[in-house]
Amino acid sequence: MKKMEEILENHKKGNITEKDAVRMINDCFYSDIGHTVIDTGREERTGYPEAVFCHGKTEKQIVDILAAMNRKKINVIATRLEHDIYKNISSLLPEGKYSADAGILTIENRKIKKREGGCIAVVCAGTSDICVAEEAAVTAEFYGHEVRRFYDAGIAGIHRLFRVIDKIREANVVITAAGMEGALPGVVAGLVSSPVIAVPVSSGYGASFNGITALLSMLSTCATGVSVVNIGNGFGAAQVASRICMSGAGK
Amino acid sequence: MKKMEEILENHKKGNITEKDAVRMINDCFYSDIGHTVIDTGREERTGYPEAVFCHGKTEKQIVDILAAMNRKKINVIATRLEHDIYKNISSLLPEGKYSADAGILTIENRKIKKREGGCIAVVCAGTSDICVAEEAAVTAEFYGHEVRRFYDAGIAGIHRLFRVIDKIREANVVITAAGMEGALPGVVAGLVSSPVIAVPVSSGYGASFNGITALLSMLSTCATGVSVVNIGNGFGAAQVASRICMSGAGK
Amino acid sequence: MKKMEEILENHKKGNITEKDAVRMINDCFYSDIGHTVIDTGREERTGYPEAVFCHGKTEKQIVDILAAMNRKKINVIATRLEHDIYKNISSLLPEGKYSADAGILTIENRKIKKREGGCIAVVCAGTSDICVAEEAAVTAEFYGHEVRRFYDAGIAGIHRLFRVIDKIREANVVITAAGMEGALPGVVAGLVSSPVIAVPVSSGYGASFNGITALLSMLSTCATGVSVVNIGNGFGAAQVASRICMSGAGK
Amino acid sequence: MKKMEEILENHKKGNITEKDAVRMINDCFYSDIGHTVIDTGREERTGYPEAVFCHGKTEKQIVDILAAMNRKKINVIATRLEHDIYKNISSLLPEGKYSADAGILTIENRKIKKREGGCIAVVCAGTSDICVAEEAAVTAEFYGHEVRRFYDAGIAGIHRLFRVIDKIREANVVITAAGMEGALPGVVAGLVSSPVIAVPVSSGYGASFNGITALLSMLSTCATGVSVVNIGNGFGAAQVASRICMSGAGK
Amino acid sequence: MKKMEEILENHKKGNITEKDAVRMINDCFYSDIGHTVIDTGREERTGYPEAVFCHGKTEKQIVDILAAMNRKKINVIATRLEHDIYKNISSLLPEGKYSADAGILTIENRKIKKREGGCIAVVCAGTSDICVAEEAAVTAEFYGHEVRRFYDAGIAGIHRLFRVIDKIREANVVITAAGMEGALPGVVAGLVSSPVIAVPVSSGYGASFNGITALLSMLSTCATGVSVVNIGNGFGAAQVASRICMSGAGK
Amino acid sequence: MKKMEEILENHKKGNITEKDAVRMINDCFYSDIGHTVIDTGREERTGYPEAVFCHGKTEKQIVDILAAMNRKKINVIATRLEHDIYKNISSLLPEGKYSADAGILTIENRKIKKREGGCIAVVCAGTSDICVAEEAAVTAEFYGHEVRRFYDAGIAGIHRLFRVIDKIREANVVITAAGMEGALPGVVAGLVSSPVIAVPVSSGYGASFNGITALLSMLSTCATGVSVVNIGNGFGAAQVASRICMSGAGK
Amino acid sequence: MKKMEEILENHKKGNITEKDAVRMINDCFYSDIGHTVIDTGREERTGYPEAVFCHGKTEKQIVDILAAMNRKKINVIATRLEHDIYKNISSLLPEGKYSADAGILTIENRKIKKREGGCIAVVCAGTSDICVAEEAAVTAEFYGHEVRRFYDAGIAGIHRLFRVIDKIREANVVITAAGMEGALPGVVAGLVSSPVIAVPVSSGYGASFNGITALLSMLSTCATGVSVVNIGNGFGAAQVASRICMSGAGK
Amino acid sequence: MKKMEEILENHKKGNITEKDAVRMINDCFYSDIGHTVIDTGREERTGYPEAVFCHGKTEKQIVDILAAMNRKKINVIATRLEHDIYKNISSLLPEGKYSADAGILTIENRKIKKREGGCIAVVCAGTSDICVAEEAAVTAEFYGHEVRRFYDAGIAGIHRLFRVIDKIREANVVITAAGMEGALPGVVAGLVSSPVIAVPVSSGYGASFNGITALLSMLSTCATGVSVVNIGNGFGAAQVASRICMSGAGK
Repeated sequence: MKKMEEILENHKKGNITEKDAVRMINDCFYSDIGHTVIDTGREERTGYPEAVFCHGKTEKQIVDILAAMNRKKINVIATRLEHDIYKNISSLLPEGKYSADAGILTIENRKIKKREGGCIAVVCAGTSDICVAEEAAVTAEFYGHEVRRFYDAGIAGIHRLFRVIDKIREANVVITAAGMEGALPGVVAGLVSSPVIAVPVSSGYGASFNGITALLSMLSTCATGVSVVNIGNGFGAAQVASRICMSGAGK
Repeated sequence: MKKMEEILENHKKGNITEKDAVRMINDCFYSDIGHTVIDTGREERTGYPEAVFCHGKTEKQIVDILAAMNRKKINVIATRLEHDIYKNISSLLPEGKYSADAGILTIENRKIKKREGGCIAVVCAGTSDICVAEEAAVTAEFYGHEVRRFYDAGIAGIHRLFRVIDKIREANVVITAAGMEGALPGVVAGLVSSPVIAVPVSSGYGASFNGITALLSMLSTCATGVSVVNIGNGFGAAQVASRICMSGAGK
Repeated sequence: MKKMEEILENHKKGNITEKDAVRMINDCFYSDIGHTVIDTGREERTGYPEAVFCHGKTEKQIVDILAAMNRKKINVIATRLEHDIYKNISSLLPEGKYSADAGILTIENRKIKKREGGCIAVVCAGTSDICVAEEAAVTAEFYGHEVRRFYDAGIAGIHRLFRVIDKIREANVVITAAGMEGALPGVVAGLVSSPVIAVPVSSGYGASFNGITALLSMLSTCATGVSVVNIGNGFGAAQVASRICMSGAGK
Repeated sequence: MKKMEEILENHKKGNITEKDAVRMINDCFYSDIGHTVIDTGREERTGYPEAVFCHGKTEKQIVDILAAMNRKKINVIATRLEHDIYKNISSLLPEGKYSADAGILTIENRKIKKREGGCIAVVCAGTSDICVAEEAAVTAEFYGHEVRRFYDAGIAGIHRLFRVIDKIREANVVITAAGMEGALPGVVAGLVSSPVIAVPVSSGYGASFNGITALLSMLSTCATGVSVVNIGNGFGAAQVASRICMSGAGK
Repeated sequence: MKKMEEILENHKKGNITEKDAVRMINDCFYSDIGHTVIDTGREERTGYPEAVFCHGKTEKQIVDILAAMNRKKINVIATRLEHDIYKNISSLLPEGKYSADAGILTIENRKIKKREGGCIAVVCAGTSDICVAEEAAVTAEFYGHEVRRFYDAGIAGIHRLFRVIDKIREANVVITAAGMEGALPGVVAGLVSSPVIAVPVSSGYGASFNGITALLSMLSTCATGVSVVNIGNGFGAAQVASRICMSGAGK
Repeated sequence: MKKMEEILENHKKGNITEKDAVRMINDCFYSDIGHTVIDTGREERTGYPEAVFCHGKTEKQIVDILAAMNRKKINVIATRLEHDIYKNISSLLPEGKYSADAGILTIENRKIKKREGGCIAVVCAGTSDICVAEEAAVTAEFYGHEVRRFYDAGIAGIHRLFRVIDKIREANVVITAAGMEGALPGVVAGLVSSPVIAVPVSSGYGASFNGITALLSMLSTCATGVSVVNIGNGFGAAQVASRICMSGAGK
Repeated sequence: MKKMEEILENHKKGNITEKDAVRMINDCFYSDIGHTVIDTGREERTGYPEAVFCHGKTEKQIVDILAAMNRKKINVIATRLEHDIYKNISSLLPEGKYSADAGILTIENRKIKKREGGCIAVVCAGTSDICVAEEAAVTAEFYGHEVRRFYDAGIAGIHRLFRVIDKIREANVVITAAGMEGALPGVVAGLVSSPVIAVPVSSGYGASFNGITALLSMLSTCATGVSVVNIGNGFGAAQVASRICMSGAGK
Repeated sequence: MKKMEEILENHKKGNITEKDAVRMINDCFYSDIGHTVIDTGREERTGYPEAVFCHGKTEKQIVDILAAMNRKKINVIATRLEHDIYKNISSLLPEGKYSADAGILTIENRKIKKREGGCIAVVCAGTSDICVAEEAAVTAEFYGHEVRRFYDAGIAGIHRLFRVIDKIREANVVITAAGMEGALPGVVAGLVSSPVIAVPVSSGYGASFNGITALLSMLSTCATGVSVVNIGNGFGAAQVASRICMSGAGK
C-alpha cells in the first residue's frame, strides 16, 4: 500500500503532524459521511472498488456518496439507479456515464485496466431480459473484462441460439439471464464446457412469480455446470464471472 | 339406457313388483355400500367407468369397493394401490391384473373395446419418472387406446430424445412426465405439432420441492401447446389425452 | 419452403450474388433488429406466426418489432398490450386492429385461412374474467378457428351455465377462465365430453392470492378431462386448443 | 355453581376445615397433575367439557389425564387418539367407547343430555374424508346433538349428492368435509339455506398440498354462507355447529 | 313464484303471445346485458338479492349492471366500490346510498324487510380494521338485520373489550375483524357462547403478510366456536351471520 | 393512581356529582372518539404511553387521535407516519417533533424522565436500513433511554464494524437492523455479551423477499443470544430493549 | 487466561519443549477430532461452554465429541438427543445426566456456579409444549440460573394462567412456549413488565404448519415487549434469557 | 472419436456386416436396457462420464444400470446411494468403492487421469454438513481434481475458520456447505479472491425449513463472488468447480 508508506515517511520527516497522519491513514480505509461509511480502501484490498446499490437510498444520499467517492478519486459504479433519479442528479455528476438499459452509472476516476482473464459471454433469452443482462455486461466491462453479448437467444426459437453457439463456446465463462421457466442456462450448459452462471429474471405470466419459478428451475436443472445468483442480480453474476476469469488454472 | 327400459317393461308386464323396480333402477345409478357410494352408471353416461383412488383408503374399504364393482360387472381400475397392500388383498381379487410400476390394478369384467381415436405417446425424462408415466400408460390402455412408450428420454442427453422424436411425432397427443426443472414438455412441444400434456414428477434435489418446481416451470414454459395436470397425476393425464383423441376434428 | 428454392434457383442462374443469397436465406429464418431477433420463419415451420408478448417491453421496442414484422409481411399478434401504450403507438401502425378487452393487437399482413379443425368454446365465470377469456378468443380467431363465447356463466347462479351448456357441448374443445375458487372447469368437465382447458384468473378476495388458489384448485379437481395453463394465460390456452383441434383423430 | 355452595355451607357449619375448603374449591376449577392442569370447571362454565387433544402427548400423559378426569367424574372426549395407542391403553380405560373412524375416545361419566337446538348434517365428499367427518359427527353427538351423516356425496358424481339433498336441507347447520379442490361446500351452500361449515381434508394428488388447496378454495368460494375451520378439524367444526344450533333466533 | 303464474295465466287467456311469454319468463331468471348475465331471480329463490363485486370491473360495466338492476327493480348492493369510482358514476345513480367506510353502494328499489332472526355484533380490533367491519355491518343491515358495532376493542388494551363484552354477549352471532396476529376472535369466543365468525384483516408489519398471519392464526386458534372467512371478506361474514340468524333452532 | 383518588374525594365532599365522577373515572382509562378508543391510562399502568400506528389510518383519523391525546396531556408517539401526510397535518400539530428518517412524530406533553436502565446500541448494516434503525432509536429515546447509533456497519466491509465494536460492547442491549441475508446480528452476537435484538429489513434483490430471507436467517442463526422482531419493526425492538434495560438483575 | 501463562512459564523454564508448548496452547482453543473441531476455549471466552446439537449427527460422532469434551474436562450440554440414541450410548457416558423431556444430556465436569442474574420463568401453553419448555429450562439451569416452571397455562382456560401470573411477574425474564395460534406470549407480555421471549412450538391441526403459524403470529403480535426465537428452539431462548439476566442495569 | 473410425474401417473392409456396424455405432452413443437409456458416449463428448442419481430408483434398476456400465467399461459414479441399499447390492459390484459419508459408489473401469486445473477447497460449517461436503469432495476427486477438505469451520467459533483460511486461499475455487442461516459462504467470500460455490444444507431448527433459509440467505448475500447450487447438491457443486478449474484463463 504505497499511499500509506508515503504518509508514514512524511510524518517521519516532520512534513505532517501526528494528528494529520492518523486522519490521512484513516482515509485510506473508510470515509464517514454520516449516513454512510464509504469503504475507500476496497479496490486496493480486493481489486474491485466499492459499488453503490441505489435502490432504497434517497437522491440526496446517492449524491452525497458519489460526490465523496469522486473527492477520493475512487472509481464509481452505482447500480439500480432509476432513469428518473439519474435525470435529477446528472447535472451534479457531469463526468458520469449512464446506461439506461443497465440502470448503472459509472465514473472512471482512475483509468480502468483491461484484465487478461479471458472473455465473458452474456446471453439472454428475450427482449424483456435485456435490463438484467446489461447490468451484468456493463459491470463486467467496468471491471476490465472483455464482454460479448448474445441477446434474444431463448429456446422458443432455438435456431436463434444455434446460430451463435460457437461464439459462446469461445468464452471462459457464460452468464445467462432468463425469465419464465428459466430453461436457457440448462440448455446452454449442455452445449458448452465453460461454467454457466444463471440469473433468473422476473418476466412471465402469473405462476412465474416474479422470477421465483425461473430461480427454482435453474437450481433444479439436470444439466451440469450451472450455478445460480439472486433474481435479477446481473451485478452479482458479473462479480462471480470476474472471479472465475481471474482464478482458474487454465484450459 | 337399455337396461332401464327392460326393468320398466318387466314392471309393466307385472313380472316384477314396484318395490323391486325402484331398487333395480337405483342400481343402474349407484350402489351404496356404507362407507362408499359407487357410481355404477358412470361408464354408460360418460364412456369411462369409475376409477378407485386407493390412497387414503383402508385395505378393507378397497376390497369392499372392488368386490361390489365385480358383483355389478363393472370394469375396475384402482390407482395408487401400493404393492404391499396389493399383496395382502390379491387372493381376494384373483381376476385382477396388477402393474407394480404403475401402482394400478385392473379387472376387465367386460371386454374393453379398442378406441379408434388415434395413438398416445407417453414420454418420460428419467428412470425415476417411470412410475408416473406408467400410471398414464396403463390407464390409457385400459380406456382402449393405443399407447407408445418412450422412457428415459430427458434433455440431459438430448440425443436420446432425438433418436425417438420421429415416432413421437406420429402420436395424436403426447404425455410427458418429468421431475427436477421439468423442461422436457417444453422441448417436446417445440418439436411436435400435437398437444402436449405435462405431468410434473416429484424427483430431484431439495429445491425441486417434490415436484412444485417442475409444476411451476411447466406452467411458465415459453413453448406453445403445453397444458399441465397435477403433480404425479398420470391418471389425469391419460383422461385428458383420451378426451383429446375422441374429440378433435381431425388433422 | 418455396421461397428458398427461388433464391437458390436465382443464384444458380446468376441473377443474384452469393452474398445476397446468403442474406436472403438468413431472412427466411430470422431478422435481427438489435434488441430482438424475430423468428420470421415460424409460421412456415409450425403453422403459427411468432407472437409478441408486450409486457416488459418498452414502447420503442414494441414499435420496432411490429414494424419489422410488417416489412416482412408476417401476420402480427401482439398480446398484453396495454390500452395506454396502444394509444401512443397506434398512429404508427394504422393497419392494426386492437381489442381493448383482450389487450391484443393484430395485423393481417397475409390473409388468415380458416381452419377446419372444429370449433372452440370459450366460457368464463364472471365479468372480471372477460379480459382473459377474450385473450383466448381473439387469439384462436387469429389462428383461423371458429370461436363461440359464453360469458358470465359461473357457478354462483348455475342456471346461467345450464341455459348454454348444450351449445358448449357442440365444441371440440372448451376453454374455461375462472378466478376465486376456480370451480367452473371441473363443473363444465362433468357436463361435456370434450377436453377442458382451465385458465386461472387473478380475481377474488385476499386468499385467492391473485389466481394461485384457482390454479391449485383446478390442478386438484376430482373431475376428469381438465388440464391447466398459467394464471391469466388466455393466449396459451388458445394455442393448446388449436393443437387439439388440428391433432385429434375424430369423434 | 351448586357444588361450591355446598362446600361453603359445609365450611360455615364447621363440617370441613378452611384448608379443605380451599382445596375443594380449587378442585372445582382445575386439577393439577404435574404435566397438565385439567380445566375441571369448563362444562359448568361453558356447557362443554374439556377435550383432550392426544396428538403430541405420550401414552402416559394421556392415561394420566383421562384417569384424573374419570376421578372427577367429568365427561371425557379424547380426539386424535391413534388406534395403536388406544389398543395399548384400552385395558386401563374399560369404560371408554372408541371410534376408530373418528379417532375419538369418549367416556360418559355423567349422562349426556340431548340438546334441543336442531339437527346437524355431516356431509363428506369421498371415502377418504370419512375420518374427518366422523370426528365432527362423534363430537357433535357427544355434545348431545342429533347428527345425520351423508357420506361419499362428492361432486364427481353429483347425482349422489342430489339423491340426499332434501334431507340435508332439513338440518339447521351443515358440516361438509372435502379434500382435493374442496368444491363440495360451495355447491352445498348453493343448494341449502342453512350456514355451511367447511372442513378441508388432506386428500388428493401433489398440488393438493395436504389440504391447503382445499382450504384456500373454500375460503375463496363465490358461494354465500360458507365459513371455514382448520384442515382436518372435524372437532372444531362440531363446536361451531353446536354453537349455531344453540344460538340462533329460529327460522 | 307469483310473477310467473301471472305470465302463464295471461298467456292462457291470449293476452300475450307465446314468444312474449317465453321472453318474460326468461326475465324472471336472468337478464343478459352482453358482458354480464344478471341473476334477476336470486332474491326470490334465496332470500338475498344478487350482489355486485366491483373490484376488477370497469366503470362502464358497473354502471351497466346497476342500471339494469334498477330497471328490474332489484335491490342493489355493490361492494368493493372505490370512492373515486363512486364519485365518477354517482350522478348516474342518484338514488344510491354510498358508505365510504364500507366501500358499498346500496339502492333500495324494494322496501327491505326487517328480519326477526336476532342481532349481529360486529367487533373490530383497531381503527385500521373499520373498513372491513363496516363492509360486514352495512351488508347485514341491507339484509334486514339489527347490527351493533363495537370498534377499536382489540386486545392490546383489553379493558376496552371488557367494557363492552356484556353487550356483545347479547348478540346471536359475533363477527370479529382483526389484523396483525388475529387474536381477537379467539379471545371473544372464550367470553361469549354465540358462534364467532373471524375476518382476517391485512393490517400490520411485514410478517403479517397482508392478513395471511391473521388468517392462519384464526384457523389455528385453540378457542372453540370460531370459523373463518377470507381475508377482508366482511361481505361474506355478513352472509354467514345472516344464515346463522335465520337457521338456528333457538337458545 | 393519584388522579382517581382526587375524583373520589371530590365526589365524597360533594364537589362533583356522581354522574361527573363516573365520566371522570372513565376518562382515566379510555377516551372514545368514535372510530378509536384511546387507552389514556396506559402510561400509568405500564410505564409506556399508547403509541399510534399510522399506517392504514386516514389523515383525519390520525389528527383526531393526536388531538384527543393532546387534550388529555398524554405523551404522543405516532409511528409509520409518512412525510407527505405529516406535511398535510403539521400545521394542526405545531408542538409535534417529526423525524423524517424514522417516520415518527412525538409530542412531549409531559416531561419525559430519563431512565437509569443502561444504554441501548442501535447498529445497522447499510444506508438503506437507516429508516428502521431510526424508528428504533427515536422510540427508545422517547422512552427516556440513552441511545448510541452505529450506522452502515454491515459485514461487507467488516473493518467498519470492528472500528466501533468496543463502543457497542458497552451497551446493555444491542438492536441490529439488517436486510439482504441478515447476517449482521449473528456476527455482532458473537462479539458482545449483551442480548442482541435482530430487526429484519426489506432491502435487497429478488430472493430477499422484502425481508423474509433476513427474518428466516436471523431466526436460524447458529450464534447465541439473538432474538427477533417483525420485519421493519424498529418500534417493537425498542420496546423489547427498554424492558430488558429495566428488568435485568445487573451484570 | 491462567492456563496459557502456565504453559509459557513452563516452556521458559525449559520444563516443556517448544513443540509441546505449541500443541498445549492449541489445545486451549480447539480440539480437532477429524469430523469435528471442538471449541474448547469457549467457556473461558464467553462464559458459556460449547453445546452439541445432536440432530443430524451419527451415534459415533456424538460419542466421539462427548468423550473428547470429557477428556478436556469441559462441561457438556448435548441437545436434541433422542431417547433411543441416548439408550445406545449411555453406558459409554455413565457420568451423564439425561432429561428425556428436554432431550438433553449434561455432564458437569466442572462445578456449575450459580449466576446472580435474577430468575427465569418458563411458561408453556399445553402438555404438548413441555418438550420445548424443558429444553429451555434445563439449559438455563445448566447455565447456573434459577428457573421456575409454569406449565399448561395456555389461554384456552385462562384462569389457569391467572392463578400463577403473580409468580411469573417476579421473574426477570419470561420464556413462553406455545403452538397452535401462538397467542400466549402476547397475553403474558400484557400482564408482566419483563421482556418476554416467545418460542413457537410445532403442535396443532393442519394450518398450524408445524409451528409456522405460531411463529408468524408471535412476530405480528400487537402486544409490546415480545421477541421471538426459532420454532422449537428452547435452547436458544435460554441463551437469550441468560444474556438478559446478566446484562440489564437493574430494575 | 477413434472407436467409430475403427468400426467404419472394419465395415469397409468387409470384416463386419452393415447390421453389426449400425449396432456397434449405436453402442458408442447409448445403451438401452429397457427402463433406462445409458448415455455411453458422454465422457467422450463432455469429458465427464454419466452419473447415476440413485434416489428414487429401485435396487434392481440401480444394479441393472451399473452392470451395463461395467460391461461398457465406463467409469461409474452413483450418488445418493443409501448405505442399506449398498449393503444389499455390494456383492454384485465387488469392484465398487463406497463412501458412506458421501453416499457415493465409484467404479474405476478406466484409469482416472489427474486434471491439471488447479485445486478445489471443500469447506463445511458443522459436523452435520459433512455428508454434503463429502458428496462434493468425492465427486471432484473422481473427476481427477486435487481436493482439500476443511470441515467444522463454521462461524459460531470463527477462529476455527481463521486457523485454516490461508490454506483455503490457495485453492482455485472454494465449495462451502452450510445449513442453518447459511452465512459461511459470504464470510469465506470476503476472505478469499477465488469464486465461492455455496451449497445449502438441510440442518437446523424449524425455520431453517430443510435448507430453504440457507438457500435464500446465500442467494441474498451482500458479499461478492458467491453463486449457489441446489440444497444438498454437493455433486452439482463439484461439477461447477471442475468446469471453473478447466475453463479460467489463469491468475
